Formats: sequence, C-alpha cells, structure tokens
Amino acid sequence: MSGPFDEWMKTVQARAEEALGALLPPAELVPHKLHEAMRYTVLGGGKRVRPLLVFASGALFGADAHALARAAAAVEMIHAYSLVHDDMPCMDDDDLRRGKPTVHVAYDEATALLVGDALQSQAFLALAEGMDIPATRQVAMLRLLAHAAGSSGMCGGQAIDLDSVGISLTLEQLEQMHQLKTGALLRASVVLGALAGADVGPDQMRALDAYARAIGLAFQVVDDVLDATADSATLGKTAGKDAAANKPTYVSILGLEPSRVLAEKLRNDAHDALAPFGDKADRLRQLADLIVQRKA
Amino acid sequence: MSGPFDEWMKTVQARAEEALGALLPPAELVPHKLHEAMRYTVLGGGKRVRPLLVFASGALFGADAHALARAAAAVEMIHAYSLVHDDMPCMDDDDLRRGKPTVHVAYDEATALLVGDALQSQAFLALAEGMDIPATRQVAMLRLLAHAAGSSGMCGGQAIDLDSVGISLTLEQLEQMHQLKTGALLRASVVLGALAGADVGPDQMRALDAYARAIGLAFQVVDDVLDATADSATLGKTAGKDAAANKPTYVSILGLEPSRVLAEKLRNDAHDALAPFGDKADRLRQLADLIVQRKA
Repeated sequence: MSGPFDEWMKTVQARAEEALGALLPPAELVPHKLHEAMRYTVLGGGKRVRPLLVFASGALFGADAHALARAAAAVEMIHAYSLVHDDMPCMDDDDLRRGKPTVHVAYDEATALLVGDALQSQAFLALAEGMDIPATRQVAMLRLLAHAAGSSGMCGGQAIDLDSVGISLTLEQLEQMHQLKTGALLRASVVLGALAGADVGPDQMRALDAYARAIGLAFQVVDDVLDATADSATLGKTAGKDAAANKPTYVSILGLEPSRVLAEKLRNDAHDALAPFGDKADRLRQLADLIVQRKA
Repeated sequence: MSGPFDEWMKTVQARAEEALGALLPPAELVPHKLHEAMRYTVLGGGKRVRPLLVFASGALFGADAHALARAAAAVEMIHAYSLVHDDMPCMDDDDLRRGKPTVHVAYDEATALLVGDALQSQAFLALAEGMDIPATRQVAMLRLLAHAAGSSGMCGGQAIDLDSVGISLTLEQLEQMHQLKTGALLRASVVLGALAGADVGPDQMRALDAYARAIGLAFQVVDDVLDATADSATLGKTAGKDAAANKPTYVSILGLEPSRVLAEKLRNDAHDALAPFGDKADRLRQLADLIVQRKA
C-alpha cells in the first residue's frame, strides 16, 4: 500500500527522527553513557504515532514545521521515557521493546532510571527553547505537556494501572485508567500541534478533545486486541503480557469480537468529531484509521 | 541562636511548605496512593536550602512572594524527586531519608519510581501556570529548570557519579561531577529567584553565577565532611555511605582538615562574588555561612 498518506507519514517520521537526533545531546558529550543510552532509547524505532498527530493537527492550524518538530520531539521523548521506566523490573519487567533489548537490559537499571529522568527534562527543554512563537503560547504548550505527563495524566494512569493488577475493573474504570495512561499524551500531541500554529478557540478545542478522546481509547482497545492475538515478533514487544499479569483489558472485560466492534465505533466517533474542520482534517482522519487498523 | 536571619528563614520555610502543600495534588484526588506518596516525599521535612536561595535572590531583584513561592516549590520538587530515585535499590539503596523511611520502603519500588516521575512533571507545572510575570521570563525560568534538571545538569551529575564508583577521580573531575549533581540545581535556585523579579543583566548573571558556583561546591565539600564525621541520627540519613560504597569524596581525595579549609575558602569566594550588590545581598551571604557551618 502506498499513496499520498503513506508519503506524508514517511516524511513526518523522517522529520521527527531528524528533530530527535538534533535535540538529544550527542553521545560525544559527557556523560557519554547516559547520552548514548538516551539516543538508543529514542532513535531509530517506533511508529511515531504522537509526532504524526502533532504534524496532522499542526497543519490544520497553520503551524510552521520548525515549531512542530520541537513539539513532536517533546511528546516522543515523554513517551519514550515512560516506556523505559515501565519496562524496568519493578514495573512490567520486560526485556524487549521495539524489537530491541530494553534499556535496563542493554545497559543497567540505574542507567535506565536516569535515562527516563533525563528524557523528561529534555522534553520540557525542547519546548522551552528555540521556538519562534509568542511566549504566552509557548507557556501554554509547556503547561499542557506538564499536565499530560504528570499525576493528572500519564503517571496517574500508570499508578491506577499498578493498583489494578488482579482486581476486576468496570469498563468505566478501565476507560478512566487508559484516558490517563495513554490518552493524555495522545490528546497533548493533538493540542500541541494546534498551539504551535495558533491560539485555539473553545469550539475548536472541544472538537479536538472529542477526536483525541476517541483515538486515545481506540488506541488502547486495539492494543489489547493485538496483545491477545498477535505474536511477539510482529509486535516487537512481549505479547500476551497483560493476560499473563492478570491485568484487566478490554478483551478480558468485553471479549474479543465486541472489542473489535468498539474500536470501529471509536474510529467513527473520531471522524465525526472532525466535521467542523472539513477536508482540511483528512490527515487526522487517516491517522484514526491507522490507529484502528494497525497490525502491531 | 535566634535573630532576624533565623526569623526570616522560618518565614521562608513556612511559605515554601505552604506553597508545596498547595501545589501538590491533594491525597483525596485519584490516584490516592500516588498523591499521598508525593506528599509524603515532599512535605514536612528538609532544610529547604533551595527555597531559601530562591527567596534570598528574589529579594535582590524585587520579586513578589507569589512568584517566588512557585519557583521555590518547583526546585524543591525536582530536588525531592531526585532523592526518591537516588534512594532506590538500583541506585544508592538507602532506607532512611530526613529521618523517615524512604519512599520505596514506606510504599514500594514501583510507587517510588512513579512518585519521582510525577514530581518532575509537577515541578514544571508549578512554573508553567499561575505566574503573574511576563511570559518571556516565565519561559526563561522553565528553560533554566529543564537545563538544570536534565543530562546537562543534575541527571548528568548522577550519571558521572554512577560511573565513578571504585575509580579514582582527580579533584577537577570530582568538582565537575558535583557542579552538575548538586551545583546545577543550587545555581538554578539563585537564578530562578532573580528571574521571578526582573530580567537579569550579564554582569548580574556573572556575579550570581560566581556566588552559586562557590556555594554549590561548598555544599558538597561540607556534605562529604559530615558524611565522614557525623552520625546517622544527626544527618537524618545513613552516614558513612560514600566511604562504604568506595565513592570518591573531597575527604578521600584531600583529607578531612584540608576539606574544611576549602569549605571556608569557598564561603569567602561566595561573599566576594556578592560585592556588586552591596548590603542588599546579606541574606545570600548568610545562606553561604549557613551552608558551610551546618551540622547536618
């Protein structure tokens, strides 16, 4: 399959990779091992879903490529740090990520801890310097990222996830957990792209929120379906982990086929939410399709 | 000993405690355990050296108490998160901090990891919202904190520290490590206080830098002296750890008495650096004295 959307994706992925390479400290700089491990963690892998969302949303709001590249790098660094810490022995204890040994396996636990910590700072630094946009909007972007990353977002979702092992959640509780754990950063990607281009009015923000909420949930539902049906080689990470760890998932609560139906419904919700933007939002629509139809 | 300086310290410490209490999410908010553990980590303890530096420097630049309280809370949250991660089994494996069980002992390792991660986001959030100062200066404060916390600052110093166990460092290498590990955040405290009040000119920045550099090193030299001479009950943390872990220290490289002489010299350097500010910088001078003369 190839076409304008695939071309666009490749271009954005290459631009994100380039921005990450430029915004991460070079391995030649002291401390070498930390910087090398930060680059090992972030570069050369991943679907770059969050950068794709940043660029797709930014296009809607006339953002320039330079500001978008920094915003994309920032969310991707937060995402990458969360994976490094999540994979550590005291959390999920995983040794495979994006088809490569996880950081604590390739290096050691102390380095993995520091890599995650330093990547979080680096993400805020990416937004705090070199942005040629009004400072008030730059502050709004930094505020948004801090909210999405912290205890009211991603870290909060992780904490709920930890406390949910072995207990049964309602569908509503599962949804709340995922809206924080993965949804918050996906939403941040969409809104950061918009803010990189312009002030976002309340109606526009509501539309973006509805879109982000739908794709955020869809992303997790599909993750659960893939975890239950795909193999480790395809996923590039250990498959079947959630079931083995007795973690509640959409598949365990709803069953496999209803989960697939839900993902499809959420894809339609995402499309509907974008109606006010007309054709200009096609890239965001295609990303909703991609998120639901992906095989890994 | 009591007097205007002690009164001032108590006032600032109370104000910092109050700001931290208000800026940390309440334990009643989901996820309860994470929020409770964040508050356990940060509240009710510590000398609050960094908040004291923020307020002392802020007074020089006419900053208002509200902006200073946020800046003080931000650096203190970064400092607190670094202690939580530093105490974890894969780093220093310490079970006592500020006279209380460390977070991974009081809770568990996964919670300690998340507490540190969430506190870092919360620190950036403290600077990114509710500040009634020009947005360009707010961005400068966020940029400064990100630099000081990341691989070019505190995390970088930690990484060098990790790589230094069991090998012999020169005095210069030891100094570089500490300028990153503790110095960067102490310097950030001084400069954040200033930026909360006004744009800082290059001459003023040089003076503040020289002061911060001197107290940053003095702080570490005194830490090493105390680690070698005080007991755990006085320190509120495990004494003699560095020697036991075969870590290079000022005492192991220079010896005990020359380390004390160096601390005294650095105190004088700090005083000298403040000459351009006249009497208005007396609080910063008194803090330099406090850092060198402290017993814990």
